[in-house]
Amino acid sequence: MKCLVTGAAGFLGSHLCERLLNEGREVVGVDNLYTGSERNLRGFSGNARFTFMKADVCDLKSEDLGAFDEIYNLACPASPVHYQARPLFTSLTSVKGILLCLELAKRDGSRLLHASTSEIYGDPLVHPQEELYWGNVNTIGIRSCYDEGKRMAETFVADYVRLYDVDARMVRIFNTYGPRMHPQDGRVVSNFIMQALKGEDITIYGDGSQTRSFQYCDDLIEAFVRYMAAPKARMREFFGKPGRPAVPVLNTGNPGEFTIEELAKMTLELLPESKSRLAYRPLPGDDPKKRKPDISLAKELLGWEPKVPLAEGLAKTIEYFRVAAFSHP
Amino acid sequence: MKCLVTGAAGFLGSHLCERLLNEGREVVGVDNLYTGSERNLRGFSGNARFTFMKADVCDLKSEDLGAFDEIYNLACPASPVHYQARPLFTSLTSVKGILLCLELAKRDGSRLLHASTSEIYGDPLVHPQEELYWGNVNTIGIRSCYDEGKRMAETFVADYVRLYDVDARMVRIFNTYGPRMHPQDGRVVSNFIMQALKGEDITIYGDGSQTRSFQYCDDLIEAFVRYMAAPKARMREFFGKPGRPAVPVLNTGNPGEFTIEELAKMTLELLPESKSRLAYRPLPGDDPKKRKPDISLAKELLGWEPKVPLAEGLAKTIEYFRVAAFSHP
Repeated sequence: MKCLVTGAAGFLGSHLCERLLNEGREVVGVDNLYTGSERNLRGFSGNARFTFMKADVCDLKSEDLGAFDEIYNLACPASPVHYQARPLFTSLTSVKGILLCLELAKRDGSRLLHASTSEIYGDPLVHPQEELYWGNVNTIGIRSCYDEGKRMAETFVADYVRLYDVDARMVRIFNTYGPRMHPQDGRVVSNFIMQALKGEDITIYGDGSQTRSFQYCDDLIEAFVRYMAAPKARMREFFGKPGRPAVPVLNTGNPGEFTIEELAKMTLELLPESKSRLAYRPLPGDDPKKRKPDISLAKELLGWEPKVPLAEGLAKTIEYFRVAAFSHP
Repeated sequence: MKCLVTGAAGFLGSHLCERLLNEGREVVGVDNLYTGSERNLRGFSGNARFTFMKADVCDLKSEDLGAFDEIYNLACPASPVHYQARPLFTSLTSVKGILLCLELAKRDGSRLLHASTSEIYGDPLVHPQEELYWGNVNTIGIRSCYDEGKRMAETFVADYVRLYDVDARMVRIFNTYGPRMHPQDGRVVSNFIMQALKGEDITIYGDGSQTRSFQYCDDLIEAFVRYMAAPKARMREFFGKPGRPAVPVLNTGNPGEFTIEELAKMTLELLPESKSRLAYRPLPGDDPKKRKPDISLAKELLGWEPKVPLAEGLAKTIEYFRVAAFSHP
């Protein structure tokens, strides 16, 4: 079975490629290496069933690519520090990337998984967020390039499903962490680990009582695999009913909540040699976002829920950062 | 002064071209004639300062077009019946149309007016809607192609303003009516007038007590003209302050509220010869949208507010439909 993975050299893309290869698939991975890195592919780049294609989804046309049984669309800068550095490129990657994948899926009858995001919920007014929630997103702010690009991509997927019966499935991915995260990702898990490894103060904004949920990467990839294994008929049966999303879309995340202070303390416990201390700073204006996934639909459809406890996932992530982070390009 | 108008043959585009020509401008009007009609251009198509270009903004490249002092981006199907018939085309028109205009404006230093819409507020949770409201929009519904396309377009405008200091101004247009509306537009004003003219029942969904606001087209065009006449320095001074939108964006609409039943009765009063009667039908699921603009910002910035009373605007619209509607292609 032949798979295409866009964003293959990214944090999640590389874990997905590895898993697909382990299951005996043939994988073509596309990445422009803007935030991805060939380092992430080292573990399997020698595998004869893996082909890496350095290319930008914005430049590719469907004619450039052969037929795939499965397509996984993960291409897009996802951390604020990266996407805000290139906002137009980010929106265009979202829009053009999904259009490319949808055209391929339509042409070849491929099954398509589109990586959407909890960011489409924005600064949510309901907690936890279920898939029927429409979100609260600013169209003209500095995060909009990512949020609105991802929202537009969902709309394209939904319309291709309605118009052409494309076998597309969307996941809205909540905060996910693990080995191969970009050390300059700028989000809290990598920040805390990097600070602890360097012996710098661990910066907590506000009093640290704000909560976050953290999904370990392997749990997410397991959801991907189960979702894509489900027959198309099951999608038709499950979605489009009253009280369900009109087209296939699932939240994937870990509903366990931890305070930022708990995360900081856990990081230090796992790095007892660290000289870092907690340092409290004023909360920036746009920070107190609280997001927590309602994963009932994924549980019901896939029998899936996250398995990896935070302490375990964090320990694996720290081990990765210890070796890799300081030599990252 | 040279102006480009996309969507020139549409209802609003044609009124805008006419006004710009009356003010002595040179106007190039672009339209693919999907919902627009050359009939709308008849009054001024012979004017030597007007050039019509039958083209689709999705196919045009910035190299295809010369330099303009002012650009008005109005291209996009806007009524549900039209945009739901071609959802992908609608989203692409929104996205590609604004990117074309932004590239032109960036290249030539043009001033740009982008026609956004009250639809970016979706099914609003606050009333009336001010520009700082983020909206409540479904990403995967049958209206999403329009709503999300228009939201994405706003994001591109905001990022071009931030990155390249493009002199762009957005208007979020609320329900607008007048002569040259498409007779098959499918929305309430044209539906009622067409039904009254044909002597058919006037269909009211629900008990008719739901309210709408109606802006006459000339009021809107007046807002466009004042907005575009304001110096760029004034935009910098006015927007981007606390409590104001980050980039230039203004609501334009008529905050006067009328019930659907009042509109129906007013239509019949203006057509005393009509044999139509009011007919009440069950309210469809997605209908009870209530939107009412907060136009404080436009008042403050432009000294603008709508002037044309509903009875007067409706009378003019009826006169137009009486002559034009039954011979519309």
